[in-house]
Amino acid sequence: MTISKGPQAFPRTEYLRRLDLVKAEMARRGVGVLVVSDQHNITYLTGYTARSAYVPQGLVVSSSQEEPIFILRRMDRPAAIYQCFMDQEKIVSYPEELIAHPELDGYDAIIDYLLDAGFSTSGIGIEQYNVSTPTFDKFRKRLAEAELVDFTKVVAWIRLVKSDLEIEVMREAAAIADAAIARAAEVIRPGVREADACSEIAATLIRGANGKPGTQLEPLTLCASPRTGTCHITWAEDVFRNGSQVNLEVAGARHGYASALMRTYSIGTPTDRLQRVHDIHLEGLEAALETARPGATCSDVANVFYRSIEKRGLKKESRCGYAQGIGWTEPTASLRDGDLTLLAPNMTFHLMLGNWIDDDFGYVISETFRVTEIGVDVLTSSPRKIFQLA
Amino acid sequence: MTISKGPQAFPRTEYLRRLDLVKAEMARRGVGVLVVSDQHNITYLTGYTARSAYVPQGLVVSSSQEEPIFILRRMDRPAAIYQCFMDQEKIVSYPEELIAHPELDGYDAIIDYLLDAGFSTSGIGIEQYNVSTPTFDKFRKRLAEAELVDFTKVVAWIRLVKSDLEIEVMREAAAIADAAIARAAEVIRPGVREADACSEIAATLIRGANGKPGTQLEPLTLCASPRTGTCHITWAEDVFRNGSQVNLEVAGARHGYASALMRTYSIGTPTDRLQRVHDIHLEGLEAALETARPGATCSDVANVFYRSIEKRGLKKESRCGYAQGIGWTEPTASLRDGDLTLLAPNMTFHLMLGNWIDDDFGYVISETFRVTEIGVDVLTSSPRKIFQLA
Repeated sequence: MTISKGPQAFPRTEYLRRLDLVKAEMARRGVGVLVVSDQHNITYLTGYTARSAYVPQGLVVSSSQEEPIFILRRMDRPAAIYQCFMDQEKIVSYPEELIAHPELDGYDAIIDYLLDAGFSTSGIGIEQYNVSTPTFDKFRKRLAEAELVDFTKVVAWIRLVKSDLEIEVMREAAAIADAAIARAAEVIRPGVREADACSEIAATLIRGANGKPGTQLEPLTLCASPRTGTCHITWAEDVFRNGSQVNLEVAGARHGYASALMRTYSIGTPTDRLQRVHDIHLEGLEAALETARPGATCSDVANVFYRSIEKRGLKKESRCGYAQGIGWTEPTASLRDGDLTLLAPNMTFHLMLGNWIDDDFGYVISETFRVTEIGVDVLTSSPRKIFQLA
Repeated sequence: MTISKGPQAFPRTEYLRRLDLVKAEMARRGVGVLVVSDQHNITYLTGYTARSAYVPQGLVVSSSQEEPIFILRRMDRPAAIYQCFMDQEKIVSYPEELIAHPELDGYDAIIDYLLDAGFSTSGIGIEQYNVSTPTFDKFRKRLAEAELVDFTKVVAWIRLVKSDLEIEVMREAAAIADAAIARAAEVIRPGVREADACSEIAATLIRGANGKPGTQLEPLTLCASPRTGTCHITWAEDVFRNGSQVNLEVAGARHGYASALMRTYSIGTPTDRLQRVHDIHLEGLEAALETARPGATCSDVANVFYRSIEKRGLKKESRCGYAQGIGWTEPTASLRDGDLTLLAPNMTFHLMLGNWIDDDFGYVISETFRVTEIGVDVLTSSPRKIFQLA
């Protein structure tokens, strides 16, 4: 018995368009075949989002074949048939014996495939930063006559500019993030456990918005007093108190794409310091969004923000955000000083202005935006305020 | 201003005990210093669970120092001060400029530290499977006179046998998993969206059980008809129907430790096939649990299960489970044919008997257990039945 292909997040033409961009890079770099092992790149090129990347898997893109071959663990083949755009004969599984095998693993099956398919003397692209040294050594040894070419971040750079179809998915995800930010304002109350508030926020991220559910749950972080100087604690075993400040980061998620959003909450009147920091960051945020347009660089956007808050006596040490899409943070363009990536239409960023000023005091605000022909289109739409709660 | 140490999941003596085991391995392998980069090993040795492992970080364990040095990104230092057992002077941060830097990254800061601390000609342990080839090359080049010794899985093997304190945490997590399995039976109904059921299940996993919240949310997977042959799809944009079968896998989580649990649900009377598969797996599960005791091997447990279901005409291709603890799956002992790891008291396993029999039909049941002096103690306690729902 077999499983049928499920509803697809994107039409076949969209995946073929993406693959054409990858194949053009392959031609430019002189490789006939590419092994994509980064799970987010695999999602981009196939639609596959099941959570199997804790074992080896690889997408083999060949310049002479329209569809790629996805090689993964036997038990994950049905999910790949269901989710991927390709014909099911392109989903090839390796046996369960390779899981936790003392010497072999799924990469041996991928190398076997490359050898069988006649690529033993080809140029072969490998995402070197995504494989460990012993795995890369295995490729070198077993494909000794091939020329291994590093493809680290090559597919990720292609992902940087989204199609209109991708933008729509990120817009759906942004609406989910907005819903979670609003839900948080309803459930953060004195005496409530942080976990209970987070359970409601997570439930909202999964239920989604506008009839579109979240299709996975991205980690949320809630850092409340006395932990507002921290940024990546999920939540603590603590309760909210009168006077507590709460820094929240969430991301709505659709089909692997994340749209992130941060807001700060105050139980009771914000302190003067918090209000002042908010006012200064808000001005900087608006200045940054006004700067972002085709032709400006990532560095320009960051520096407009840095100069804006410095004028008023604040500093931010960390970058001002990053390219965003599948898997939340993309590993390419950063809104940081010195990043000369030119903004172009349909690039999407998380303008992340969280600022952990002291070890015991931080503040967060952010937006997810896309670059348009003339400026920006902010996908998230929560009020840019400190949410003051009773 | 500084942040104070927060409530600790374990007493200081527990972390020092773990470090002593690691230092004994270091002595045996001739290294004076070890760089731990696996995030779950870092959690084990420090208590740190914040989600910052998407950028480089390393725990430097030195045989001559009681406490390790944790080197991480500047913005994550306050969370490390809050969560780690060590004195805050042992939490060393690298500057934000290294994030998304074109040439350097956090590993350069770790290497700088090793050079400054006089380890340039030492034996240095590195978790080679946890770093990419370019990163390992950086260690080789910048520490050319040191002897780099592979420590892949060395700390993970130490994690295999838990202390009684760890068992208590895993028991708390198991109770959370039970609560989620029970909640699922209340919310899975015909016409309900899968996402809405999952939002309730996730909320339960976060709210926790017995007054102990989940401290993070592990991914849950819900694979319902017609997708019961898949195992790692989070959930689908679909609704439950009369006659739907639902395979659910959850894990309760406390302080980084996960206790996983799988159960199968049927809306309406289970099909004869499903009931028969359940009966056969239940018998196999009980036989496996009766076999597990000190002195038996992982392979013994798996083979008792395989023989039990084969006698009744079924087969399972995948392994029967794995060591479980921090980060859910531990990368060491597997309940698989040929794994000769001897069971010992306080090892903990996910006896994972999910069986994806056809591409369009699978069934799941599992338990989290610990090995005792004489047999097993099953930490999860949900009824071992097909949950039949109205």
